[in-house]
Amino acid sequence: MVAPIDFYFEFASPYGYLASTRIDAIAARHGREASWHPIMLGAAFKLTGAQPLVHTPLKGDYMMRDLPRFARLLEVPFKAPPVMPVNSLAASRACIWLQQDDPKMAKALARAVLHAHWGEGQDIARAEDVADIARPLGIERAALLAAVADPAIKAGLKQATEAAIGRGVFGSPFVLVDGEAFWGADRLHQVERWLAAAGW
Amino acid sequence: MVAPIDFYFEFASPYGYLASTRIDAIAARHGREASWHPIMLGAAFKLTGAQPLVHTPLKGDYMMRDLPRFARLLEVPFKAPPVMPVNSLAASRACIWLQQDDPKMAKALARAVLHAHWGEGQDIARAEDVADIARPLGIERAALLAAVADPAIKAGLKQATEAAIGRGVFGSPFVLVDGEAFWGADRLHQVERWLAAAGW
Repeated sequence: MVAPIDFYFEFASPYGYLASTRIDAIAARHGREASWHPIMLGAAFKLTGAQPLVHTPLKGDYMMRDLPRFARLLEVPFKAPPVMPVNSLAASRACIWLQQDDPKMAKALARAVLHAHWGEGQDIARAEDVADIARPLGIERAALLAAVADPAIKAGLKQATEAAIGRGVFGSPFVLVDGEAFWGADRLHQVERWLAAAGW
Repeated sequence: MVAPIDFYFEFASPYGYLASTRIDAIAARHGREASWHPIMLGAAFKLTGAQPLVHTPLKGDYMMRDLPRFARLLEVPFKAPPVMPVNSLAASRACIWLQQDDPKMAKALARAVLHAHWGEGQDIARAEDVADIARPLGIERAALLAAVADPAIKAGLKQATEAAIGRGVFGSPFVLVDGEAFWGADRLHQVERWLAAAGW
């Protein structure tokens, strides 16, 4: 089995959502799997000086025009959530917790949370919001709420984010293919081409 | 004749260079022309708080890996110039001057300057550098040097940059297709698709 490709995303990033709807299919077409890594993008923004796009003059307006247009192109639902950027700590910690024993379930939860937030416009800030989204997947509510408050899980997310930054990750989505970095939902066609030919 | 598409770029922007090598062909495939608009991106950066990528932690390293890779994909030459970002006032003013009487010559000069700077790694900061690049195109050296120092031309570039910002332009490359905005060299395939079907 060849190594998976690494898909880094932030739940508060709409472009991370857009890419998440395609990354597994892209990997699968080339006999690969995608490992999903939720990160807290704010930690990287402290290094790069970046600001959330939605609060940036000119860029924020562009983004709010671009997002529904990009979503139509990908044929996925998009609805702007009430607060942007959302606090994604609870969702990210829940994924870190599930990854310990069941990476497939962690990915299923990540997908459900991204869909709820960016596809349906739901708030995902509170641990209770994440627990509501997790329940149809068979994830036990009390266990999730306990995990999200667990210092070891909190530390695990922090370490995962630092490890990502250590690999050069500074945005969402960010894909590493055998160490080769691609930033942005608009680079997925380059990811695919790189996978197809092991570079160009 | 349908309206041209608008291609905004900054001479100091390597992604503007990459897009410039494709934009005319993309427009032509859909019966359109591309109007080239050099802008001083620093004026937009003052509004958005953006910094030159090359000086940004993590992003700068990514860019220097991405640029030659992207250039190989487009099959165009790339050589990092000695100073980034270069002062592009002289090149931009020379284009503004030529646009008054001969837009085709302005585009030819822009193409030659972008190629010299990003394809060959030459410095283009001094008006003399631009005059050297302009000479094989038949552009008279003394006239160019005078135009670059002309207060009316300086004001023209400032106005052109402000007009671009007024249309929402904040980055390079930036393409407007019938008012629809696309930012980034990695969006050219979306530009092409928009042109092909008048939206999606």
